[in-house]
Amino acid sequence: MAASGSYFVHIPKYFSPHLLGAFHKLYPKVSLHLDVVNRSQIIQLLKENEGDLVIMGLVPEDMNLKRFPIIENPIVIIANPSHPLASQQNISFNELAKHDFVLRENGSGTRKAFEDFLLSHQIKINPSMILGSSETVKQAVMADLGISALSRHSVTLELATKCLVELDVQDFPLMRSWYVVHHETKQLSPAAQAFIDFILYQPEAVGSLCNRLLETHFISQ
Amino acid sequence: MAASGSYFVHIPKYFSPHLLGAFHKLYPKVSLHLDVVNRSQIIQLLKENEGDLVIMGLVPEDMNLKRFPIIENPIVIIANPSHPLASQQNISFNELAKHDFVLRENGSGTRKAFEDFLLSHQIKINPSMILGSSETVKQAVMADLGISALSRHSVTLELATKCLVELDVQDFPLMRSWYVVHHETKQLSPAAQAFIDFILYQPEAVGSLCNRLLETHFISQ
Repeated sequence: MAASGSYFVHIPKYFSPHLLGAFHKLYPKVSLHLDVVNRSQIIQLLKENEGDLVIMGLVPEDMNLKRFPIIENPIVIIANPSHPLASQQNISFNELAKHDFVLRENGSGTRKAFEDFLLSHQIKINPSMILGSSETVKQAVMADLGISALSRHSVTLELATKCLVELDVQDFPLMRSWYVVHHETKQLSPAAQAFIDFILYQPEAVGSLCNRLLETHFISQ
Repeated sequence: MAASGSYFVHIPKYFSPHLLGAFHKLYPKVSLHLDVVNRSQIIQLLKENEGDLVIMGLVPEDMNLKRFPIIENPIVIIANPSHPLASQQNISFNELAKHDFVLRENGSGTRKAFEDFLLSHQIKINPSMILGSSETVKQAVMADLGISALSRHSVTLELATKCLVELDVQDFPLMRSWYVVHHETKQLSPAAQAFIDFILYQPEAVGSLCNRLLETHFISQ
């Protein structure tokens, strides 16, 4: 398969570079352009059939899209280790809802997954702060400004070093998936097709790449 | 001083939540809205005299702005620990420039500081990848896709856990500062004035808050 040329991938920040790095080593002639955008921007790109491939969580049901699962995306509730809930077990969501929350901006896929859960359980929370990136949410939780819901992939290092703790909440983690997605009518370039094949035919390698940070630095030591 | 109401701060992601968290504990009635934007967006906001306060690195010289230094912002060269340069000392920039670089997008202050340095030393590098956030750059460097220049504040945890190494490069780190900035004609709210006073009159506390992550989890253990 001729896999050269360049293509565009709109990606979650945390595991995609590791995945694309491994792909790049297999196909060094493929020059990669990665663009990090949020969910609303991704949906706009898919509507306009722009870019080659997209990596995203919640795939819109009302569009003609092809999707290929990559790995699970566990959405967890995180807190500062000194938070009163940190030592509790099997926390009910009604108990959790009494505490301050820090949320991602509207348009974030993680926020949407979390809000869908709240809606289906008729739970209301009062966000004390809305922040424009998962990195800032993470830092705000470390600064004890509230608790939050984030992809476990985005807090691997912080959990491993106990800068943050994952709360033991009923019904959590919310299990979602990451997908590679493109418009049904997309004419895939050989490079984009090679990337999809790489995802589909090497699922174990892909899973391990997504957890590379943790495996390299903590589990293996 | 009456410090209540809300205000807007456009901020670097890594230390600002810790700073604002401490401020929030002093002035719990101040509701904070934090917005994370990049340098070009900050400059637009300053031009339009929008928002209350901005936290930024390189302050534009050609605008009527008031600035108050917060802390130093050391820009360092980072690499994967297995990178061939990781074990070398006193690396010349000509040597460094032979390797692949991963860069932030145009409009990033860190990228501008780095490019100003390259220009003044007449050094050319070939970026192999342009990425839209410091988080993705960080992950790409961990995935060994290239080396990069980032604020040391953004890689505190990764350096402390040896997921990344800081290269020993001549003339580095580039020492810059973070500033609180507002337009000269800005009518400061009591809350915004209280925040500036907090920065100016408690510099030691502020420095320690900015390094809170590192101090709490690594130095003190």
